[in-house]
Amino acid sequence: MNRSGFFYDLLSTLFDRPHLARVKGDGRSITALCEDLIASSSEGASHNMGQQILSSFTELTPQGEIEFFNYLTERMDIDADRLQRLSAAYQADRSPENLASLLAAAEPKRQELLRRINRVPGATGELVNMRARLLLLLKDNPSFGRTDLDFQHLFGSWFNRGFLVPRRINWQSPANILEKIIKYEAVHAIDDWDDLRRRVEPADRRCYAFFHPVMPDDPLIFVEVALVKGVPDSVQAILAENRKVLDPESADTAVFYSISNCQAGLRGVSFGNSLIKQVVEDLRAEVKSIGTFVTLSPMPGFNRWLQQAIAKMPTPPAWAAQIAAAMESGTADGLDEQAQWLRRQAAHYLVNEKDRHGMPRDPVARFHLNNGAMVHDIHAGADMSANGVRQSCGLMVNYLYDLKKIGQFHEGFAENHTVFTSRSVKTLADAAAPNSSGRILINGT
Amino acid sequence: MNRSGFFYDLLSTLFDRPHLARVKGDGRSITALCEDLIASSSEGASHNMGQQILSSFTELTPQGEIEFFNYLTERMDIDADRLQRLSAAYQADRSPENLASLLAAAEPKRQELLRRINRVPGATGELVNMRARLLLLLKDNPSFGRTDLDFQHLFGSWFNRGFLVPRRINWQSPANILEKIIKYEAVHAIDDWDDLRRRVEPADRRCYAFFHPVMPDDPLIFVEVALVKGVPDSVQAILAENRKVLDPESADTAVFYSISNCQAGLRGVSFGNSLIKQVVEDLRAEVKSIGTFVTLSPMPGFNRWLQQAIAKMPTPPAWAAQIAAAMESGTADGLDEQAQWLRRQAAHYLVNEKDRHGMPRDPVARFHLNNGAMVHDIHAGADMSANGVRQSCGLMVNYLYDLKKIGQFHEGFAENHTVFTSRSVKTLADAAAPNSSGRILINGT
Amino acid sequence: MNRSGFFYDLLSTLFDRPHLARVKGDGRSITALCEDLIASSSEGASHNMGQQILSSFTELTPQGEIEFFNYLTERMDIDADRLQRLSAAYQADRSPENLASLLAAAEPKRQELLRRINRVPGATGELVNMRARLLLLLKDNPSFGRTDLDFQHLFGSWFNRGFLVPRRINWQSPANILEKIIKYEAVHAIDDWDDLRRRVEPADRRCYAFFHPVMPDDPLIFVEVALVKGVPDSVQAILAENRKVLDPESADTAVFYSISNCQAGLRGVSFGNSLIKQVVEDLRAEVKSIGTFVTLSPMPGFNRWLQQAIAKMPTPPAWAAQIAAAMESGTADGLDEQAQWLRRQAAHYLVNEKDRHGMPRDPVARFHLNNGAMVHDIHAGADMSANGVRQSCGLMVNYLYDLKKIGQFHEGFAENHTVFTSRSVKTLADAAAPNSSGRILINGT
Amino acid sequence: MNRSGFFYDLLSTLFDRPHLARVKGDGRSITALCEDLIASSSEGASHNMGQQILSSFTELTPQGEIEFFNYLTERMDIDADRLQRLSAAYQADRSPENLASLLAAAEPKRQELLRRINRVPGATGELVNMRARLLLLLKDNPSFGRTDLDFQHLFGSWFNRGFLVPRRINWQSPANILEKIIKYEAVHAIDDWDDLRRRVEPADRRCYAFFHPVMPDDPLIFVEVALVKGVPDSVQAILAENRKVLDPESADTAVFYSISNCQAGLRGVSFGNSLIKQVVEDLRAEVKSIGTFVTLSPMPGFNRWLQQAIAKMPTPPAWAAQIAAAMESGTADGLDEQAQWLRRQAAHYLVNEKDRHGMPRDPVARFHLNNGAMVHDIHAGADMSANGVRQSCGLMVNYLYDLKKIGQFHEGFAENHTVFTSRSVKTLADAAAPNSSGRILINGT
Repeated sequence: MNRSGFFYDLLSTLFDRPHLARVKGDGRSITALCEDLIASSSEGASHNMGQQILSSFTELTPQGEIEFFNYLTERMDIDADRLQRLSAAYQADRSPENLASLLAAAEPKRQELLRRINRVPGATGELVNMRARLLLLLKDNPSFGRTDLDFQHLFGSWFNRGFLVPRRINWQSPANILEKIIKYEAVHAIDDWDDLRRRVEPADRRCYAFFHPVMPDDPLIFVEVALVKGVPDSVQAILAENRKVLDPESADTAVFYSISNCQAGLRGVSFGNSLIKQVVEDLRAEVKSIGTFVTLSPMPGFNRWLQQAIAKMPTPPAWAAQIAAAMESGTADGLDEQAQWLRRQAAHYLVNEKDRHGMPRDPVARFHLNNGAMVHDIHAGADMSANGVRQSCGLMVNYLYDLKKIGQFHEGFAENHTVFTSRSVKTLADAAAPNSSGRILINGT
Repeated sequence: MNRSGFFYDLLSTLFDRPHLARVKGDGRSITALCEDLIASSSEGASHNMGQQILSSFTELTPQGEIEFFNYLTERMDIDADRLQRLSAAYQADRSPENLASLLAAAEPKRQELLRRINRVPGATGELVNMRARLLLLLKDNPSFGRTDLDFQHLFGSWFNRGFLVPRRINWQSPANILEKIIKYEAVHAIDDWDDLRRRVEPADRRCYAFFHPVMPDDPLIFVEVALVKGVPDSVQAILAENRKVLDPESADTAVFYSISNCQAGLRGVSFGNSLIKQVVEDLRAEVKSIGTFVTLSPMPGFNRWLQQAIAKMPTPPAWAAQIAAAMESGTADGLDEQAQWLRRQAAHYLVNEKDRHGMPRDPVARFHLNNGAMVHDIHAGADMSANGVRQSCGLMVNYLYDLKKIGQFHEGFAENHTVFTSRSVKTLADAAAPNSSGRILINGT
Repeated sequence: MNRSGFFYDLLSTLFDRPHLARVKGDGRSITALCEDLIASSSEGASHNMGQQILSSFTELTPQGEIEFFNYLTERMDIDADRLQRLSAAYQADRSPENLASLLAAAEPKRQELLRRINRVPGATGELVNMRARLLLLLKDNPSFGRTDLDFQHLFGSWFNRGFLVPRRINWQSPANILEKIIKYEAVHAIDDWDDLRRRVEPADRRCYAFFHPVMPDDPLIFVEVALVKGVPDSVQAILAENRKVLDPESADTAVFYSISNCQAGLRGVSFGNSLIKQVVEDLRAEVKSIGTFVTLSPMPGFNRWLQQAIAKMPTPPAWAAQIAAAMESGTADGLDEQAQWLRRQAAHYLVNEKDRHGMPRDPVARFHLNNGAMVHDIHAGADMSANGVRQSCGLMVNYLYDLKKIGQFHEGFAENHTVFTSRSVKTLADAAAPNSSGRILINGT
Repeated sequence: MNRSGFFYDLLSTLFDRPHLARVKGDGRSITALCEDLIASSSEGASHNMGQQILSSFTELTPQGEIEFFNYLTERMDIDADRLQRLSAAYQADRSPENLASLLAAAEPKRQELLRRINRVPGATGELVNMRARLLLLLKDNPSFGRTDLDFQHLFGSWFNRGFLVPRRINWQSPANILEKIIKYEAVHAIDDWDDLRRRVEPADRRCYAFFHPVMPDDPLIFVEVALVKGVPDSVQAILAENRKVLDPESADTAVFYSISNCQAGLRGVSFGNSLIKQVVEDLRAEVKSIGTFVTLSPMPGFNRWLQQAIAKMPTPPAWAAQIAAAMESGTADGLDEQAQWLRRQAAHYLVNEKDRHGMPRDPVARFHLNNGAMVHDIHAGADMSANGVRQSCGLMVNYLYDLKKIGQFHEGFAENHTVFTSRSVKTLADAAAPNSSGRILINGT
């Protein structure tokens, strides 16, 4: 297997990205290494120090992590006093030199530190993991939010949409990537390799992910899609083991039934909207027969809200105890008779219930509505897994992406928090709370 | 040619990156589009506006370009007054919220604008071209330097060393990349495809480049290397048409005889140091027999300096007129007799002559010395091309990369501007100016 | 550039096929090596002997080649006497064992020899070159035709259509492949890299080739295609330097204006028909607007025939001398006035003139008609290059591939040598020889 | 995901080989299609008929298969009478024409039929499956052996060693290939994906396979290798779930512990020898510390022989019943005390027991000895799986590949059936049968 030539270099460098080389420490503490890295002008030395910092970080004790982030937060901050002076100077004389000084002073030193660490091949993924640790500590150490601002800023640049690589995941995909799909699936857990195979191999199933070129083995986000006839009303049908595979050319609808973010350390760097639009575009080009793009989505906050709502009702319904039992046990015995009542409550929850910013309470609703989707339908008995019953009494939602209206709906939602719905969902919501749905606008067509 | 499957997606998305789609404008001016893009929260609309801005930019008149950059500079600047207030507030209360406000205010709006434009697939290369235009206007419009700070900042993040992909260029490389090597070669012009072939195909010739994943057809920088026996004293031998190819296993020396930056718009984003070190590392692993890594470099500023130096000499040498004629004509008739005198002057020029920052006057010397190289030797008659004679009377320099001393030499140079030389170069410099070379340190071995 | 992993292995082994390793001979003659290779049962030894045979062959003198092929022909032949006996035995008892013996005896030993040589990685291309040498010697050594039968038989299996890989050639193709396109173009010579680029880079130009997996750097055959509006009447328009590029979506016609076989050693192993059909299929799928597939073809035998025809004419035309001069000089001064007369002669030549097998005299006509094409049109002044004038007074032919009729036309031609033509070509032929065109059938539609 | 360019075409055609397109039949029977395909000269029609034949074959009833193979055997055979005449004619006049007629007549028509079917992209794998069916019918239909000769002949050409592609299989390999490794493992069954992962992912485990370019998803043969310290004496240690991974640089021995052929239809087309030698070569280049290449192999015929041997013993050993029980139950209770006796019997079995051709009775022994290996050691308790106990009372064998002696050992075995052993194995064999081991030669070093 003699190896040479262009392809060899090209592909090995793109796909066989060196993993971060583990190096032995030279005795300096992680903070001393940070000081030296910021001070150094030698690329060789910087490289080695970057590697040492990343290696050291993975070996820190919990207390050591806190000390390290505290160091970044307090000792690598901006000098606000100096910034004030330089702002005044720039106001007086808007020269490029003054602006350069000002911008340099306005950037916390830790940002340059992180940038230098990132020069080490393989560092980016490690820095994403570092931030994942930081986020875990944020609640107890709110000041670390200052350091998190710099991670967010840098990740926003590095993971700019223009750098992301969309890839289809299928049964020809490498096993080390497929096992990450199993691991990261956050909506409908994948039991094993057979379950995975049912989701990526059949001709009427698709899975797409975004990757970053320097983390080619690690998906950032992925979406699972089913090509079907008609808008589906339950996820059981989609995930059934022995269902008949549909010829894609016979499908008229693409159902996005699961979207999962993979990297905790990239929280707040949003990819979902882009991925959905990319996939819609690709599917339209590839499968001409498909005209409808719709989700089958959970309502993660429904049950929590419903319990509170029932508690406030002057006369709670007879089946309140059943609901409480369902949430507790994950089994929905007897609830199917209340399907219509539950659907009304869900419509009300999605359409009328707002958080303190005036936004829908449900996070999944916020995501799709902000993308320009509308609430198309609500189904009872749609996710009868234990998790589905606990979260939302087994109800699921179709959000519809109407390509001609995405822009208009997004703007209406972004500017006025307008929730667009189908006529049937509006009817459901009205039945639940006749006087409250003043801000619902029905999709006119 | 049925196409499906993992490899198809993977490779087509990585290599067949969409070029920027040209879109028709919708009538808005480029500045109106910028305003709207900054204001927009819709990804779809943003995408289209980004495309329009990039398309519009390429159609601007020279005056239109000036107006556009003026708009970015003046209208998308920071609000220094506000920044001053937020700095004070943060000094008073170092909360994450205050820091967030401060950092947001400290970033010129044009930075976010450029980041949003860059979300468009294929935009990065266009933004590099945009900055290339900006740099051309900088001299006449010094205030544009403020906008340039933001390009530099973003490119520093986007073209972070950890994101670059090293690739070997050879005769199996795609023609569209090879033609860029012909175009961008800045040191020893490549006449045609046959000349190119002589530089990349033989077993004792190498060419390496850095690429960025989103610009896979566009090298950022490349270096040409010859594997030879003994340190070479002229570039003619290296570029000769009918030379005998050496078995690489017989070579003991790798000569870096040409390094070219390809993207004017990336000025100041430094890749050369990294590339040299990458190539040294690769060659050491691949060709065990090679122990010496040396350049054969031009002295682009030598003749200009020499003319000034001669003008100041109390008794100019007899051959001053010959030198002037050589610089004028590009032919060095009769100068070979003055080889030793010229070598001494060159040694003095490299070692003792400083600019106002105390750095060597020669830019190539600054580059290699800062990388940790030393001045190893100086050769007359080493580049007898018209360009070589005009620049430096045909003299060339070997800078030696001694892997064991790179760190020490870099630091000496970075901290004290110490120029490390071989004993023979020191002897040459001493002969030219006996008392001035106090700061030269000979490489001790 | 750390290298490992699946892609590395996969791609390096597929694309970076080891070239045949040159080995030192061990003193045995090439024929002794052949004897030993046939006798050997050791894979290791066989491998080395195969390499030695291939290396030795390239160093043979012309006389040595003749002796080597003579050895293969006479000493590695079948034993006809034995074969006769085994045939009788099999006729008596049709047992698998008897058939096995018979088949073994019916295969010249040189076939197994060539098969064993071919086990050496990289050998296939060398064996193709070996046959190319053999073909050159065939005329003077007709007995070598016996050895050639075995090459043909093996190449027919090894280069089975199902093993060929179609690839598009474009400006992103590797330079080492593009240079072979320049070298092998047999119809309209490619002057240099700029000329090549004009044929493969513009959006309305295509080039496709067949490759064999073990010879990935060596095209077997390629075709050049122009996407145009309307059926073209000259090749000058297609090859013009400064022509305007057409948006492919505006094209209605694909013109196959050049087909070249690349490997002399594969003579008689036919790829052209398959390649044309593959390309037609691909283009139909890719460019929906294209409905017409037509060639612009030379008539390599026209002028030779025309001179003979004129010599036989009772009253040669007045311009006979002009025609003779054109063929001699390669310039067609004054002939444009005879365009119509020449077109008639050409129609007659293509349609009525037959060789001793009853087939059209023109080899290009035979190829396309056998593929199922029809003679669509004949143009004067269509290839005014020196070669074009010398071959055919500058005339060219459009053969039309009507996808609905390919099968029917092929069969008509294959069974009855029927030449299908358009009405206008039939009119031309009738005008030239009113009574002779009885077997022409006009394409009925 | 815009797709164009060279890489797209190149890779999609190489990796995303079209699977055989299923076509609807046109009513003709499979034998009628065969007649027509042999008669046809139209490529388009042939293509379609080839597809129909392959599709029809998969739908045949068992009886239909027999009829089809009977048709191939009897109706597409050679005409022995004609062959006899042509042999005589060639003997009289050795002209190329006479040889051509002779060779054509000496080839059963079914060979050309299979070659034409193979022109259909994706056909090769189907033809391999067709022969797998044929082999199943061979015992009851011995005449089909005549047709099998043609399959063997063609597969020998098509799967020539020079066309095979070696690939490493690891955890980055595509899932659809990995699942075939699970399926085809014939020696030590792979339980599930976790078990597979333990065999291909750790740094001290390797798996290599041969592929054919037109069947890129289907391994032909693969070998599993463990890098260890010292020659191992049991497979349990190698397959243990919680073993400690060894740094490959610390290993001194590569153990081939499993070799599996994947394609029943390629029986008799031998790849194992080539694969072992390829892997030895690769490992030597990659892991410098490894100097010993050894197998850990089963003795599939040992128990069957041992039972017969015991039956013939005048005084069977006391533990004969235990042995019989072990073979029956797959558990080896109490047999560990007889380890030494069993090892002696095994040595005798491997070294002295011959089949009617004078070859060792054990098929695995025949394979490795013919490759040039020697019997290095025999271990009791080495494969305590049910299968291992049933086959060979849990004993396993190390065959040693001594690179310096492979050639000599192969020749000794091939020419004189000499079994080379280590001194210790000879001692064991001598102890079992003192006077019979005259032909054993101990590896002298």
